[in-house]
Amino acid sequence: MQNQTLILIQCQDAVGLVANVAEVIARHGLNIITMREFVDEENRKFFLRVVCSGFPDSSGLLENDLTSILPAPARVTINPARQKKIVILVTKEHHCLADLLVRHFFNTLNADIQAVIGNYDLLKDFTEKFDIPFHYVSHEMKDKGVFEDQIATLISGYRPDYIVLAKFMRILSPSFVAKFENKLINIHHSFLPAFIGANPYRQAHKRGVKIIGATAHFVTNDLDEGPIIVQRTKSINHSFDVPNMVTAGKEIEKAVLSHAIQLLTEDKVMLQGNKTIVFE
Amino acid sequence: MQNQTLILIQCQDAVGLVANVAEVIARHGLNIITMREFVDEENRKFFLRVVCSGFPDSSGLLENDLTSILPAPARVTINPARQKKIVILVTKEHHCLADLLVRHFFNTLNADIQAVIGNYDLLKDFTEKFDIPFHYVSHEMKDKGVFEDQIATLISGYRPDYIVLAKFMRILSPSFVAKFENKLINIHHSFLPAFIGANPYRQAHKRGVKIIGATAHFVTNDLDEGPIIVQRTKSINHSFDVPNMVTAGKEIEKAVLSHAIQLLTEDKVMLQGNKTIVFE
Amino acid sequence: MQNQTLILIQCQDAVGLVANVAEVIARHGLNIITMREFVDEENRKFFLRVVCSGFPDSSGLLENDLTSILPAPARVTINPARQKKIVILVTKEHHCLADLLVRHFFNTLNADIQAVIGNYDLLKDFTEKFDIPFHYVSHEMKDKGVFEDQIATLISGYRPDYIVLAKFMRILSPSFVAKFENKLINIHHSFLPAFIGANPYRQAHKRGVKIIGATAHFVTNDLDEGPIIVQRTKSINHSFDVPNMVTAGKEIEKAVLSHAIQLLTEDKVMLQGNKTIVFE
Amino acid sequence: MQNQTLILIQCQDAVGLVANVAEVIARHGLNIITMREFVDEENRKFFLRVVCSGFPDSSGLLENDLTSILPAPARVTINPARQKKIVILVTKEHHCLADLLVRHFFNTLNADIQAVIGNYDLLKDFTEKFDIPFHYVSHEMKDKGVFEDQIATLISGYRPDYIVLAKFMRILSPSFVAKFENKLINIHHSFLPAFIGANPYRQAHKRGVKIIGATAHFVTNDLDEGPIIVQRTKSINHSFDVPNMVTAGKEIEKAVLSHAIQLLTEDKVMLQGNKTIVFE
Repeated sequence: MQNQTLILIQCQDAVGLVANVAEVIARHGLNIITMREFVDEENRKFFLRVVCSGFPDSSGLLENDLTSILPAPARVTINPARQKKIVILVTKEHHCLADLLVRHFFNTLNADIQAVIGNYDLLKDFTEKFDIPFHYVSHEMKDKGVFEDQIATLISGYRPDYIVLAKFMRILSPSFVAKFENKLINIHHSFLPAFIGANPYRQAHKRGVKIIGATAHFVTNDLDEGPIIVQRTKSINHSFDVPNMVTAGKEIEKAVLSHAIQLLTEDKVMLQGNKTIVFE
Repeated sequence: MQNQTLILIQCQDAVGLVANVAEVIARHGLNIITMREFVDEENRKFFLRVVCSGFPDSSGLLENDLTSILPAPARVTINPARQKKIVILVTKEHHCLADLLVRHFFNTLNADIQAVIGNYDLLKDFTEKFDIPFHYVSHEMKDKGVFEDQIATLISGYRPDYIVLAKFMRILSPSFVAKFENKLINIHHSFLPAFIGANPYRQAHKRGVKIIGATAHFVTNDLDEGPIIVQRTKSINHSFDVPNMVTAGKEIEKAVLSHAIQLLTEDKVMLQGNKTIVFE
Repeated sequence: MQNQTLILIQCQDAVGLVANVAEVIARHGLNIITMREFVDEENRKFFLRVVCSGFPDSSGLLENDLTSILPAPARVTINPARQKKIVILVTKEHHCLADLLVRHFFNTLNADIQAVIGNYDLLKDFTEKFDIPFHYVSHEMKDKGVFEDQIATLISGYRPDYIVLAKFMRILSPSFVAKFENKLINIHHSFLPAFIGANPYRQAHKRGVKIIGATAHFVTNDLDEGPIIVQRTKSINHSFDVPNMVTAGKEIEKAVLSHAIQLLTEDKVMLQGNKTIVFE
Repeated sequence: MQNQTLILIQCQDAVGLVANVAEVIARHGLNIITMREFVDEENRKFFLRVVCSGFPDSSGLLENDLTSILPAPARVTINPARQKKIVILVTKEHHCLADLLVRHFFNTLNADIQAVIGNYDLLKDFTEKFDIPFHYVSHEMKDKGVFEDQIATLISGYRPDYIVLAKFMRILSPSFVAKFENKLINIHHSFLPAFIGANPYRQAHKRGVKIIGATAHFVTNDLDEGPIIVQRTKSINHSFDVPNMVTAGKEIEKAVLSHAIQLLTEDKVMLQGNKTIVFE
């Protein structure tokens, strides 16, 4: 990873894009190691992720040269920050948080956890074991706007790349979401779009489903409607009551969330409307 | 299977049911090989499936003795028909039908396919290769009631245990469904309750999901709301357009439907309200 | 769980066992909640796991009454210790250990972790964060017998129900294994019996497999040949080099080991020769 | 697919290959739709699969131009036959054959089944239902060399791209294998390299595994050692006896084999030593 250049491109599709991009890259003395592209035929959009060996003499010049051969407006990113900064929001449940903290502690999470913010203080001691600051911001006896402002101020202080809702059980207002556009990642405890909203396991039990699942997604204003990054399911049977589902579901939730964070921190996820392109 | 007795029991839960049932079974000279039970705590219902070696001298007497020790009203079934009779309804797609016909031809489907009924005649030749009668009943230029009556009459002539909607693309009226209560099995091409109704793959594509799936379920009056028997999912990614999803989905659909039919014909499925108990 | 009695039975198979057992249970005033049995037809062995509501007046009397109706020699266990004691052995890798420690910390591991023993001290600080004693016993410049004696003495001091080899990378001698018969649980990083022995991911890469996996098993004298408890696999492709396989494999390893420990601590695993019966 | 050009390249790795290839493609008036590459770092090999819209004026010229910019010796293939020809070899089991015949009948198998050859005649009637010639060549009372010569002569008459061993239960000699190098595809009923050779399900049962699987692979001289194309597994438990494993295994076998054939006929599989690169 040390001597590599990562290039991300997102623009309108056109004839000859791969060839033109490859020519510019070669001209700058870089050698392509892996290249993944996708054309969204419906929307005529082009997505490219290239890993090259070597560094350009000037990233700015490379960016200019790439932009000049792409249909405007193009988004060209060269060597985005390798180590993303993340802030984690929690309520009472520990499983997703603990999974991320342990990975962080052993340097297998490709990100720096800046802080954990909880609307309860139940996970404070655990978080502090790992020398990560924990901010307790209660939502109780407080206007929702005030609560969100307090959290937003804390978050902004860390200037994170992503804010991870690791089982944060408060619904966020549109103005909060707008402040952190494309940075809020949520784990929803169902295979969306099934069981949107509250108590998905209770809904699932009532419906008698034979699978449960979890979904990691970007947060947008529409509840549980943001672009999906990762989903996974697990078979269950009639003997699963709601607590059994919750227990089994937690294993999926933490695996799905970690996987999504991994993909994001490796810059393998691109956004197009309400969907993601994931170059896994 | 030859020298075995299958006993199915469904009743209110009560203290000592397993012991009492086991005692009656032993008194009738049968030896329990496998016993699976389930208690639906919420509804206080008891479900039991017992396989015994040997035959009772009198099934009627055994049934009476079992019923007498169970809370009334109890449903006791002893040695239900081993080889179920099924009628298959199709439209244009072949994959589920073909899978069932091939299994039937090689005697690995635990059922007798009596006939196939299609609202198109596209699958007639294929069906008849396997010496199964195919009835073509068009829905075109015809009142829905008339169409359904024609089909219902055909079905009733075969007195089937189950009617399998193997990608039958017409919505059935409540009166039709009522005629064949607990006998209509449908394969829905999504992991219900996501994407109820028409064009689930188009809905799934639009939503940008990362999994697709299929659901085999009993048909009730509420569209796609009947008790679920089997569900399975498969991971996909952004590169799947709707036709790719359809192709991948067909593999799941036929696997899920065959599996559900297998379970039904082995009397491993019991109904409780809008759910199934599946003793797999 | 508070007012329940768990009964485990293992004996030669015979006619009427379920009925007789159920009768004894009822006679002692207990009501069967769930009953799982299995008959190993090949070896004519009978396995039963019964959960009852209520407590017997005398467990000893119940055990005697059950033993008296079973073919000798029968193994009858009534209410085995609910909270198992475990000791964990590690080398350098943290993922399985961390997973167990976190579950223990939040009381979702159905066991008491007594201590961690490492032949390196790399995981000492992490372990002690959770107030679990860590014993560092180096294997270096030391006779294998001496090393194992030191470990065995430490283990014995804790009188654990299970000793979990959470990526413990030393091969244990037959005499050590004999000391802790049926108590040593290992996680092997392949889907056994493929890739027995060292460097399974290197072997897997060389062979060009399209799946990797992990196996939790009891340890016997034959390397990686003990009874298997849980196995799981994951699809990979040509782009996985050995480090990628190792990373992906760790996710499976920790999930498989946790699952196996869960099953063991809930007394859902029974041993028969070189196999396990798992009443999941 | 109609107006597309498929280009496959396999050669030593070198700096600038993607850029140079993309330049040649653009110069010939083709537009890249999808490009998948892989570099085998260990062996310094480069693999590329490009789908372009449009046709080159001259495929020969395009091939020459591509070859001239690649390290010699390079293998360049432009628009390989879209509809592969296959011959299927069977013994007694129908499930893999039936699956392929049904797909072929409904034009969802991207290949022409030329003929089926069986060393028993049990599957003759079934095959002929689909108007595919069935050749019965018994191995009984016959020298192995004679038997193989008869089959080889039949196969050669059809000039197939692939010969599919759809549960063909005779071991083929090195000279037979040599005749059809890189064309013989086998389905092995275990997750190789576990349970090489005969009776894998019996071996699996004896070992008490908790997963079974199947492997589609190229046939080489070493039994079950050829390059793996597709593998899949399924969880089982202690209640599976050998016949249950066989039944469950058949579902995996046919799915795995169909999937492998699909990949081969879409030219998505490349060979490198004893491994495959699969651009799925």
